[in-house]
Amino acid sequence: MAVNLPTLPLLTAIAGIRIGTACAEIKQSQRDDIALFELASHSSTAVVLTRNAFCAAPVQVVRQHVGQASPQFLLINSGNANAGTGQQGIQDALSCCETVAQITGCAVSAILPFSTGVIGQRLPVAKIQAILPKTVAALTPTGWEKGARAIMTTDTQPKGVSMQILLEGQPVNITGIAKGAGMIKPDMATLLVFIATEAAVTQPILQTCLAQAVNQSFNRISIDGDTSTNDACVLIATGQKGPLIKTTTQPAFAVLQTAITAVCKQLAQQIVRDGEGATKFITLQIEQGASEQACLQVAYTIAHSPLVKTAFFASDANWGRILAAVGRTGIANLNIQNVSIYLNEVCIVQKGEIASSYTESQGQQVMQNAEICVRVLLGQGSSRAYLWTCDFSHDYVRINADYRT
Amino acid sequence: MAVNLPTLPLLTAIAGIRIGTACAEIKQSQRDDIALFELASHSSTAVVLTRNAFCAAPVQVVRQHVGQASPQFLLINSGNANAGTGQQGIQDALSCCETVAQITGCAVSAILPFSTGVIGQRLPVAKIQAILPKTVAALTPTGWEKGARAIMTTDTQPKGVSMQILLEGQPVNITGIAKGAGMIKPDMATLLVFIATEAAVTQPILQTCLAQAVNQSFNRISIDGDTSTNDACVLIATGQKGPLIKTTTQPAFAVLQTAITAVCKQLAQQIVRDGEGATKFITLQIEQGASEQACLQVAYTIAHSPLVKTAFFASDANWGRILAAVGRTGIANLNIQNVSIYLNEVCIVQKGEIASSYTESQGQQVMQNAEICVRVLLGQGSSRAYLWTCDFSHDYVRINADYRT
Repeated sequence: MAVNLPTLPLLTAIAGIRIGTACAEIKQSQRDDIALFELASHSSTAVVLTRNAFCAAPVQVVRQHVGQASPQFLLINSGNANAGTGQQGIQDALSCCETVAQITGCAVSAILPFSTGVIGQRLPVAKIQAILPKTVAALTPTGWEKGARAIMTTDTQPKGVSMQILLEGQPVNITGIAKGAGMIKPDMATLLVFIATEAAVTQPILQTCLAQAVNQSFNRISIDGDTSTNDACVLIATGQKGPLIKTTTQPAFAVLQTAITAVCKQLAQQIVRDGEGATKFITLQIEQGASEQACLQVAYTIAHSPLVKTAFFASDANWGRILAAVGRTGIANLNIQNVSIYLNEVCIVQKGEIASSYTESQGQQVMQNAEICVRVLLGQGSSRAYLWTCDFSHDYVRINADYRT
Repeated sequence: MAVNLPTLPLLTAIAGIRIGTACAEIKQSQRDDIALFELASHSSTAVVLTRNAFCAAPVQVVRQHVGQASPQFLLINSGNANAGTGQQGIQDALSCCETVAQITGCAVSAILPFSTGVIGQRLPVAKIQAILPKTVAALTPTGWEKGARAIMTTDTQPKGVSMQILLEGQPVNITGIAKGAGMIKPDMATLLVFIATEAAVTQPILQTCLAQAVNQSFNRISIDGDTSTNDACVLIATGQKGPLIKTTTQPAFAVLQTAITAVCKQLAQQIVRDGEGATKFITLQIEQGASEQACLQVAYTIAHSPLVKTAFFASDANWGRILAAVGRTGIANLNIQNVSIYLNEVCIVQKGEIASSYTESQGQQVMQNAEICVRVLLGQGSSRAYLWTCDFSHDYVRINADYRT
């Protein structure tokens, strides 16, 4: 049911990164469910983690490890989130890291573990440990596509993007892969993103770059308003090419920032397009707000309204539902008589009422599109914000109600 | 699909209130869609209106009128919300009031109009005006049940409750009727509640009484998180019996407050039980919070999580979804390791992990109930809050996606 989701493009190898995958049969399937990233020494690594207070065991281990050592390996498993597993879960994550450390000779704290899958079940540590020698042996610079597939849970397709930029005249590659969105996949705890570039960037500057990119991409999507316990986004700079970027004022930083943001936006959109039961890709574009925060508040209220989302599923240009959602947002000094709303190019609401130019056939026509931009003009100021979301279909309820049965 | 919704009880007449109903064929049906309340002179009237910035024309007229005169008539129509209709809508609401004023000889400002139904279509003023003489002629003290039916839109059953209390030894009656919930009925803009008592209460004290009751009842329900453009709750004290209540310190006030709150709670619960597509009635009971506000924040986050709501529909004791919702609430200093969660008497989460005593069969058994209490102990303090909601079913999507098609 994915909405215009592109098939996986050829993913460019990144000098300084090798990826190995293997099948540990975590969910008794024959497909790969383990991915191991090896990072060239002197790589910089930036990490953004879930803000959910109920965060999974591997997230807690990553928080500790990033403060202790420079990461050399990322160990990822799908099929089990190792969340809600308490102290035992932390021990289980560490045990897997220890095995990688033994095989490769690096410190345990140089290994960052990531898990995605069902909540509340113990990680099958023995199965994972048993397959790790094979995973290490499989490490290859061309492992990106296999990696994109190994981290999938109920995603219908692997997600990835590659891009090349010029930094001071030198070509530098960027490749990223991602899976799942928010808690779109119910217990599939959930969003994992791994991006690497050959650029040379100091860790604090790389962290700034990732934070800004995430804010404009993964923090601008919402399928069902739920934030997962395992969300993680990692950006690695292997330092193999280009100038050393150590301040945000260098021209090369701006080029890199633009590219990383673009990669994150593409991955974020791919995730929404693969939203559970999604039949429509919706861009909410809120303009003329008093602040970006106010615009985002309006965007989230619309994006989380089941009434609006079911109307999109029904291809029903139900402007009353959108306007009612704007009205209940609670932003200060909103005068509904200054609000206008467009669906793509069709004006449906003008000055708080149905637009005089609007006809039902216009509405029906625009709602047939698989991609719809809802533009809301608040008439309050000059701030703006966007958010990507999808509709709410029969399949969403079916998939989420039947998930464990 | 209503969940244990009681059939309408016998509604007691209230001395000082007469109700007339008629069919104006607003939606081309043969059932009554107009209700007129006549209030004895010297009645006090308290009103609580929607906080949606996009409020309907009649809501704006009510806001003006209550400041100008003591209400003598309430004019209610179903089938058309008169919302999103701009200046024309206000004129239309006033035109209907003017006709009532002409027939009855009272001031236009003594008439409060209420509408519920489809958003964005002009009120059929001529049809309503034509039927008003017949409506006035039909005024009777025993019109409550007909009134409860006339204000319905897509409610599956009329909703009402009667109660008798003793004020300083004198029996005093209370009767209330209600329809629809939140924006549970999509464009059916929506919640209307009319309650009358024979007690004698000054207007400011009556307003205090209603505000407190609404806060414990209609502000403690959520079907889909949408706030309607037309929500209104009216409390009338006809002053026919009992002592004059003019301060909140009189013992009679406490008795009345308790009763009015109980009436509002019963009506609020009836509305949730008749929630669109509802198959389960869920009570969220949040305890051990740092503040009532924090408890409510947790309650609303759970109540608005599509993942939690679909799990209830599926009768799936999916504790991970509930705990993840608690985790993303964003309340200060939450330590998930102090959180416990119960479904009725079954402990599913203890100290942030699945309870050691918990078995899947316990979970399956408790989820079969049509009424489930989710108790969340936050381990932060001694505050508490409750919220009533329902599940999220195939029928919710079907009804809301297909509503206008």
